[in-house]
Amino acid sequence: MIYLDNAATSFPKPSCVCREMDRCMREYCANPGRGGHALSLRAGMAVNRARDTVCRLFNIRDPMRLAFTKNATEALNIAIKGLVYPGCHVITTPMEHNAVMRPLRTLERDMGIEISVVKGNDFGEIDPFDIRREIKKNTVLIVSTLSSNVNGIIMPVAEIGRTAREYGIPFLVDASQGAGSLPVDVEAWRIDMLAFPGHKGLMGPQGTGGLFVREGIRLRTLMEGGTGSNSEYVYQPEIMPDMLESGTLNTPGIVGLGAGADYVLKIGTGTIHEYKSRLTRLLADGLAQIPGVRLYSFADGDRNSGIVAMNLADMDPAKLSFILDKDFGICTRAGLHCSPAAHVMLGTSGRGSVRFSVGCFNTENDVIYAVEAVERIAFNAAL
Amino acid sequence: MIYLDNAATSFPKPSCVCREMDRCMREYCANPGRGGHALSLRAGMAVNRARDTVCRLFNIRDPMRLAFTKNATEALNIAIKGLVYPGCHVITTPMEHNAVMRPLRTLERDMGIEISVVKGNDFGEIDPFDIRREIKKNTVLIVSTLSSNVNGIIMPVAEIGRTAREYGIPFLVDASQGAGSLPVDVEAWRIDMLAFPGHKGLMGPQGTGGLFVREGIRLRTLMEGGTGSNSEYVYQPEIMPDMLESGTLNTPGIVGLGAGADYVLKIGTGTIHEYKSRLTRLLADGLAQIPGVRLYSFADGDRNSGIVAMNLADMDPAKLSFILDKDFGICTRAGLHCSPAAHVMLGTSGRGSVRFSVGCFNTENDVIYAVEAVERIAFNAAL
Repeated sequence: MIYLDNAATSFPKPSCVCREMDRCMREYCANPGRGGHALSLRAGMAVNRARDTVCRLFNIRDPMRLAFTKNATEALNIAIKGLVYPGCHVITTPMEHNAVMRPLRTLERDMGIEISVVKGNDFGEIDPFDIRREIKKNTVLIVSTLSSNVNGIIMPVAEIGRTAREYGIPFLVDASQGAGSLPVDVEAWRIDMLAFPGHKGLMGPQGTGGLFVREGIRLRTLMEGGTGSNSEYVYQPEIMPDMLESGTLNTPGIVGLGAGADYVLKIGTGTIHEYKSRLTRLLADGLAQIPGVRLYSFADGDRNSGIVAMNLADMDPAKLSFILDKDFGICTRAGLHCSPAAHVMLGTSGRGSVRFSVGCFNTENDVIYAVEAVERIAFNAAL
Repeated sequence: MIYLDNAATSFPKPSCVCREMDRCMREYCANPGRGGHALSLRAGMAVNRARDTVCRLFNIRDPMRLAFTKNATEALNIAIKGLVYPGCHVITTPMEHNAVMRPLRTLERDMGIEISVVKGNDFGEIDPFDIRREIKKNTVLIVSTLSSNVNGIIMPVAEIGRTAREYGIPFLVDASQGAGSLPVDVEAWRIDMLAFPGHKGLMGPQGTGGLFVREGIRLRTLMEGGTGSNSEYVYQPEIMPDMLESGTLNTPGIVGLGAGADYVLKIGTGTIHEYKSRLTRLLADGLAQIPGVRLYSFADGDRNSGIVAMNLADMDPAKLSFILDKDFGICTRAGLHCSPAAHVMLGTSGRGSVRFSVGCFNTENDVIYAVEAVERIAFNAAL
């Protein structure tokens, strides 16, 4: 089996991730922060260690500003809903995932917020100046994806961050694609809130993610509950990360995420991105030479986090993806990838595309085999 | 080490749980429901199998009515916030956890809902008739814990369910304590929404939980995002469970929860409750004979899900719990247990209590050793 669906979730995981999770499950998965006994303290220390590791990866200076969530979607909902109010204005890009657009559209419908979606070019690239042009007096939030989950396009996050800081508008980045390979730095890029999944580029397990919230950004809570702190207080404590971490944490998952982030730190995001970029270029260039293939991604690693979106003539993407799986054992993803607006930009609305997404465990042979597979399918289809 | 903190999280886990999670992590943790390839389908089938197993445990007839959550707190927040509106009225008990009370108090403060907390006796037991007396025209929700996490008291959930059904008021049960040993049956007990954690009596890993929502109960969503379904629809799809399951699911965790629930089904909740009840009685009766010990729990399994709350003379509970851990290797939990109102009922407000909570892997020897430990501490304190 050749796994080229790393944008959905990275697979396989480094064995250190599996090992540490299993050790946690068997040896110390007591409830962290909910008791003073040795096992609870050990679980709590493991969670804190993971928190520190993830913070190192994103240059988050105060680990207490990082809350663990179940996935990036929860993090994005917390960030967006914690900040907006009726009549406020939010600016975003055309390449956002439904994890950003559905909360925003729901708030537009139910709360009367106003949304500006800036335009992009044929690849969904936006001009940061267009963000600046949309800023109004009631703009309370700018949200941008770091990289599109449809075609891998990298957004000018550092430039948007500069604009946001200049106007004093909180800037939320969805790093679902790119975290773990692009050099995400909340200080250098002036990111006020960073949402990320643990199970993609950070190489951790599903069920993990997080939200960094810069000091000074005040959020309303999405959920309240037991925090193991200030128990007698009838409202949610306002200290981070407790404020955003109600209920029992996913200790084995977080421990796995910590191991994954540690793995990434050891190899280095630069090395990973360089390696993935080489595979991406090989894949994109190879596919581009097949008659009937239409690409929606750049081959260049400076503009792509590791995704090649394509269609083959007028073949249904679901069919192509199905044949790749059934006849060649290649895992890809067809469809809209939960990002309908992005497909409107790319001109693939309704139909979608086939997405190949490379990970750091893929090899050049995987990619060459995938190109050959598409070549054969194209040849057979043309018969 | 003797682990008597099973009300915080059960430990150890059955080895089948650890094994299946590890297999998932190593072999098939692709993204379930997010692709048509073999690995994604395998992950999806594993999630559905777990859903079916949990439903069997609670007699949930349609597995699609069960949404997986990260913990019981998320499930409770979804249920409560999905239903209330400004000016509505909610009835609850004095033994609720902060996972119920903090959302309610926050909604009272910010949205103007009205809350009635019925009174209980010295052990926090309520009379179901008191719930009936509080019902008003604008009552939209009755929330009750199945069993208190402070002293194990079992609430008359079936009787409250009958009243709720009679008046057509949705009934939400927090089964954080008791699920996996008490015979929870959403049909027989007329439960409209059931929130539960995966990592306590269900023997699964932390990071899991769920919410059953009876057909006909309409909720607003707490979070929106990618569901892998109706991707082109700008709002959240209204089909269950997708509506409440935004973003990537915790596949390894859910698989572990399924294995845990399967383990419980095989042994039988009745057998587990009977076994835990024997240990609880042994513990309560033993502690009761120590001079200076004050118990806040019933010894009787008909009224206790497996928790013994106690204090020793005027010793700080934190100190007693600390000595038990340090000198005897016994894990307990001291403090308010995120349930300040329950401690008001028990007369332990401010100070809290020490909680011993048994699990199905404890032995009679564990309990006898714990009683002897308290005996020695009491003797030394009296010197």
